[in-house]
Amino acid sequence: MNTADMALLGAIEAGGTKFVLAVGSSSSEILARHVIPTLTPDATLAAAAEWFAAQGKLRALGIASFGPVELDRASPQWGHITNTPKPGWANCDLAGYFADRFGVAVGFDTDVNGAALAESRHGAGKGASSLAYVTVGTGIGGGLVLDNTPVHGAAHPELGHIYVRRPTGDSGFAGICPHHGDCLEGLASGPAIKARWGASLSELPADHEAHGMVAYYLGQLCHSLFAMTAAEVAVLGGGVMKTPGLIERIRECSAELGAGYLPGTARHRIVAPGLGEDSGITGALMLAEDAG
Amino acid sequence: MNTADMALLGAIEAGGTKFVLAVGSSSSEILARHVIPTLTPDATLAAAAEWFAAQGKLRALGIASFGPVELDRASPQWGHITNTPKPGWANCDLAGYFADRFGVAVGFDTDVNGAALAESRHGAGKGASSLAYVTVGTGIGGGLVLDNTPVHGAAHPELGHIYVRRPTGDSGFAGICPHHGDCLEGLASGPAIKARWGASLSELPADHEAHGMVAYYLGQLCHSLFAMTAAEVAVLGGGVMKTPGLIERIRECSAELGAGYLPGTARHRIVAPGLGEDSGITGALMLAEDAG
Repeated sequence: MNTADMALLGAIEAGGTKFVLAVGSSSSEILARHVIPTLTPDATLAAAAEWFAAQGKLRALGIASFGPVELDRASPQWGHITNTPKPGWANCDLAGYFADRFGVAVGFDTDVNGAALAESRHGAGKGASSLAYVTVGTGIGGGLVLDNTPVHGAAHPELGHIYVRRPTGDSGFAGICPHHGDCLEGLASGPAIKARWGASLSELPADHEAHGMVAYYLGQLCHSLFAMTAAEVAVLGGGVMKTPGLIERIRECSAELGAGYLPGTARHRIVAPGLGEDSGITGALMLAEDAG
Repeated sequence: MNTADMALLGAIEAGGTKFVLAVGSSSSEILARHVIPTLTPDATLAAAAEWFAAQGKLRALGIASFGPVELDRASPQWGHITNTPKPGWANCDLAGYFADRFGVAVGFDTDVNGAALAESRHGAGKGASSLAYVTVGTGIGGGLVLDNTPVHGAAHPELGHIYVRRPTGDSGFAGICPHHGDCLEGLASGPAIKARWGASLSELPADHEAHGMVAYYLGQLCHSLFAMTAAEVAVLGGGVMKTPGLIERIRECSAELGAGYLPGTARHRIVAPGLGEDSGITGALMLAEDAG
């Protein structure tokens, strides 16, 4: 093994509240990790660079970032966070900063595409050629890996902003999405649940209407994913998904809505992340591996 | 140019009522075409083979077929129509029949994936890396091409069977899908429109409620496609889409539902097929080209 092979892969899961940093020898082995708060770009990127510099020589770096981000390699904005409302972070050249600082190849994608990639290669979707990773938390976002490649398309999916059908009698709540009112995120994200019922889903008793309604919304998301993208596996993560019993209810709703019709039905699965909290950072390591 | 290069590409667009046959020198040049009715598999496949045999030597054949079909190359059922209710056609080994008969490589996909492929390379989506082709007619079906490859996933998309939100007051019609009632196909396909309003959309006056409702359903489909798959282009074909003014209304509804939020908004387009009626057969030629 020569020196270049000994050098490390670096990984950043860039989130709105914290940056998770890691180094590994490959995407299946994290050697060290570190978490720093998301402050200003100047402070946060410098702190990240300092930690990486202390770990040893890097051979490539992968970044799985909160968005919106520019993924088009042909764009001068590639590797930037674009028009986020987060103060100071709009037009932040994340990829460029680390490419300049360490002189290595940088892989870059959305946080959820990174997580989808990790779950499809090392996690709950091992063996499946197509997978959607959805996080249901402060917002609802998702990444899509089809035939082992993250989907970018016109930019990247924003699947929290589809509209879902509301069950009969479900009309008293207008939803909290500032753009769409009662789109999926406006109805089923953590803050939407709190705004509507005054508590998180886990805090509400098992016979509370919230459980059935949220499962119905998210069951529709899964059915739509299966019908529209033919994904084999829907991996559901994020804070709201920690609610006991929720994933089982979602499976029931999705199956009921599909009625056994879709040609891939026998292969469809709705599962929790196989990598637990590590989907995002593992995805970032994979982005480094693919870039290096 | 040697003899092998001179041999023809053969193409079949296999539909429930007719088979369109063509030969070409490449996917951008159809040299001859022929249409035969879809009768029993024995009669129809023999008639197709006879026509091809009369055209000259084939170097490869592509088939874009009605479904459901098996697209998994690892399955012994690959290239078959699977469990169609169409009498006689269940488990028909379409690809195998022609591979045996002509001893050539056979490419095989769904009719709508074929059309999506053709529109993305030669039609309305030229230059776009991601495109959805949707046909709105007797049923609603769609194919998806992402990064220049048709999406298969667990099988293939069946995007006519997503559920859409119905506008306030739209409650008197239960939908006609035998599996899902008022899924998109149950509400917006040609037969659904006839069952609900007693006429086709083109026959109803421009101020009839049907126009706005159908546009609202199909506008939601487009918004969901953009949000979920990040497709750049939605190509809408099929009989219902021949209704004057419909595509403009769909564009308005989709834009209103998206509210400018999706990161790819500026690149999203909703368009008619660039190849007119030739999307499917051109796609079949491309499948031949890729197989040969």
